[in-house]
Amino acid sequence: MSTEKIPYKIYLSEDELPKQWYNVRADMKKKPAPLLNPATKKPVTAEELGAVFCDELVKQELDETNPYIDIPEEIQSFYKMYRPAPLVRAYCLEKALGTPAKIYYKFEGNNTSGSHKLNSAIAQAYYAKKQGLKGVTTETGAGQWGTALSMACSYFDLDCRVYMVKCSYEQKPFRREVMRTYGASVTPSPSMTTEVGRKILAEYPDTNGSLGCAISEAVEAATSSEGYRYVLGSVLSQVLLHQTVIGLETKTAMDKYGIKPDIIIGCAGGGSNLGGLISPFMGEKLRGEADYRIIAVEPASCPSLTRGIYAYDFCDTGKVCPLQKMYTLGSGFMPSANHAGGLRYHGMSAVLSELYDQKLMEAICVEQTAVFEAAQKFARIEGILPAPESSHAIKAAIDEALKCKETGEEKTILFGLTGTGYFDMYAYAAYNDGTMSDYVPTDEELRKSFDTLPKI
Amino acid sequence: MSTEKIPYKIYLSEDELPKQWYNVRADMKKKPAPLLNPATKKPVTAEELGAVFCDELVKQELDETNPYIDIPEEIQSFYKMYRPAPLVRAYCLEKALGTPAKIYYKFEGNNTSGSHKLNSAIAQAYYAKKQGLKGVTTETGAGQWGTALSMACSYFDLDCRVYMVKCSYEQKPFRREVMRTYGASVTPSPSMTTEVGRKILAEYPDTNGSLGCAISEAVEAATSSEGYRYVLGSVLSQVLLHQTVIGLETKTAMDKYGIKPDIIIGCAGGGSNLGGLISPFMGEKLRGEADYRIIAVEPASCPSLTRGIYAYDFCDTGKVCPLQKMYTLGSGFMPSANHAGGLRYHGMSAVLSELYDQKLMEAICVEQTAVFEAAQKFARIEGILPAPESSHAIKAAIDEALKCKETGEEKTILFGLTGTGYFDMYAYAAYNDGTMSDYVPTDEELRKSFDTLPKI
Repeated sequence: MSTEKIPYKIYLSEDELPKQWYNVRADMKKKPAPLLNPATKKPVTAEELGAVFCDELVKQELDETNPYIDIPEEIQSFYKMYRPAPLVRAYCLEKALGTPAKIYYKFEGNNTSGSHKLNSAIAQAYYAKKQGLKGVTTETGAGQWGTALSMACSYFDLDCRVYMVKCSYEQKPFRREVMRTYGASVTPSPSMTTEVGRKILAEYPDTNGSLGCAISEAVEAATSSEGYRYVLGSVLSQVLLHQTVIGLETKTAMDKYGIKPDIIIGCAGGGSNLGGLISPFMGEKLRGEADYRIIAVEPASCPSLTRGIYAYDFCDTGKVCPLQKMYTLGSGFMPSANHAGGLRYHGMSAVLSELYDQKLMEAICVEQTAVFEAAQKFARIEGILPAPESSHAIKAAIDEALKCKETGEEKTILFGLTGTGYFDMYAYAAYNDGTMSDYVPTDEELRKSFDTLPKI
Repeated sequence: MSTEKIPYKIYLSEDELPKQWYNVRADMKKKPAPLLNPATKKPVTAEELGAVFCDELVKQELDETNPYIDIPEEIQSFYKMYRPAPLVRAYCLEKALGTPAKIYYKFEGNNTSGSHKLNSAIAQAYYAKKQGLKGVTTETGAGQWGTALSMACSYFDLDCRVYMVKCSYEQKPFRREVMRTYGASVTPSPSMTTEVGRKILAEYPDTNGSLGCAISEAVEAATSSEGYRYVLGSVLSQVLLHQTVIGLETKTAMDKYGIKPDIIIGCAGGGSNLGGLISPFMGEKLRGEADYRIIAVEPASCPSLTRGIYAYDFCDTGKVCPLQKMYTLGSGFMPSANHAGGLRYHGMSAVLSELYDQKLMEAICVEQTAVFEAAQKFARIEGILPAPESSHAIKAAIDEALKCKETGEEKTILFGLTGTGYFDMYAYAAYNDGTMSDYVPTDEELRKSFDTLPKI
């Protein structure tokens, strides 16, 4: 353990970077429920999943026993181009809040995709290339995942077709240009290019789109094209697995300086960042080696953990994907267009849903003007313009730090700063202009979307 | 000297960060020519400069003898929030080019302002605050400097008024929003808010604006407001001084691993990045301790070093600033609106102009479609989406690396990667769409703008 003063930013050396991902399911006594085939309602087989996903990723998706999975050399090399991500001590924020709490954040925004999404994108592109595929298809909401995947595909010379949620496509033309610069094709979803897209448009011609729609289109595009597979940026267990580089680096850095977090906070949409950050800490908790308070923060406009139902549901609007048991609002849920940024998926990672159901973590939801207030404060004090998604975690971390100010407790708070907000200036402009509004679905609206749950 | 393999990224520890800036003028036998009062044509006094600039910055501007100037503790602390900037070994680019050259770049884009500009912004804001001022005024072209200054002013709770070159204001609404998020006010220039702006608009109602115009407006706004001073993001010797943190960090990192660059390349607009990067190396060259080939890269559309005249000129269109001897195109020069990004100032830093005149460095100019071709290639290979400005250096570095491929020479090439292109997606879109064009001023156009030079 180092005895020197904690620096503003802890950068691990390349030797200290993780060489294996950590599979938290191996330490869970009660595992997440299996994915089901939507036709037979029986657990999906590797063969069935192989029609949609790359073979190696199917193996990772179904692996509940191996705690550590080697990171291939080629992926480790790519990680070195933008990792380690710094673990930052928020000295300035602590001072500005006047809190005795010690605040740390793991900053994943120092790469062109602007977020942590690249950690899984490069892994998925690598396995696709290794399998000899021509290309991959995917969906993107806020655009971080699509950008990350287009970068990863460009690196491995794979074709990349992105279905981008329509309102995001229109609000974020520059996101689209970044993807094009990396050679990807970008289609607003729902589109007329797929059967499922045409069906959705016929039923809801004015729809803003949703991640659920875009997933359906991307899956159809993959399964109807020779040499293509579908890849997904969150929700799946394989994605959480790749994202554990976040938590593993964080834990190594904290151990090195003898820091133990009391509270760990992450924003949660599909759960990839939160799952990646907390996994190594959750592993200790599951093995009874340590205890941590873990908090998922979700938008009040899309509150799958805090107001959803734990049940089997469709992962996509077109109902072509396997059924997953998860906290969900129903696949028919369409987040309000006034909701800025990502975190708009109707369900939550099966792993995180199960951990939440076992009361191993908490969840809260926050409204977006409060989130942007925290974002602006953070930008001015810590100098980083955060993504709206990340700012949910900032808001919760500030609130916890202010509680410490009241009680005088010197808690150590760790949160995940998943990315930057450079492509979210429309939303910042609305906040700056005072025209941003909040949206919270009514109980009646949720009841209606729960009606879209399958009967199992 | 470390014997380990050179990592992808060299991060210095906080202890290794520079505690002093390096003033290259102290090692120049022939100094840059003094600034002149535009009315009397005599060297300006500290008192005269003090009406426009902060007192401590005036001292730095006029200091030609002290080689090292202490970096105040408060500035060192702020630097720690986003520095050290990594020195990156471009392994992937080397491999893709198939060159025996070793390529390194110093990446200054890992902060919200998106560029190296923050290094001087925080220093200038600090001295303004220390002097008890209410606020500062400035101009910005591409927007990097304005963003950096708004961040710095927000940190020190200073008012910040930015005059933004009109075409950039219109092309980059999101840049404006970042500045507003940091609490700055942003006015498109030329504007009706100043006398000089009104005069320029009367003469050229359809002007796209220029840095020279915006400087005049910002100076007028500062000198006509109680408790305000004007600050500038490039050209001045004080700015080059602050930017030497780039070169000092680079040199420390290279020395640590026993790396000696053969060629050092930087883009050059007003010269702040280039001057900051090369200063410590140029110091060795001036003292006869080492030799380096140093190359300034400028846009063919604004070629002050490669096609300008070394003469006294106005620093601004309104002719209110001191006269500076520099390589210049004439203060009447208006860069074409089709020129994307920064590097559009009509003149060049007096320090760099003098070094260039003494043949201690070379200069080349490149056209913008070739620059964007290099930018896209770099983005795809190295994973960082570069700013158009920085991409001038990338283009030159790639060309030098390809020469090494032909000759088989294993040269070590260092270049400055000044920032990211997240706010330049309009320009990338034009490149992606194939609608980007090049512009090179004719000899006749340059002759006309040379006519705007003062008779001294």
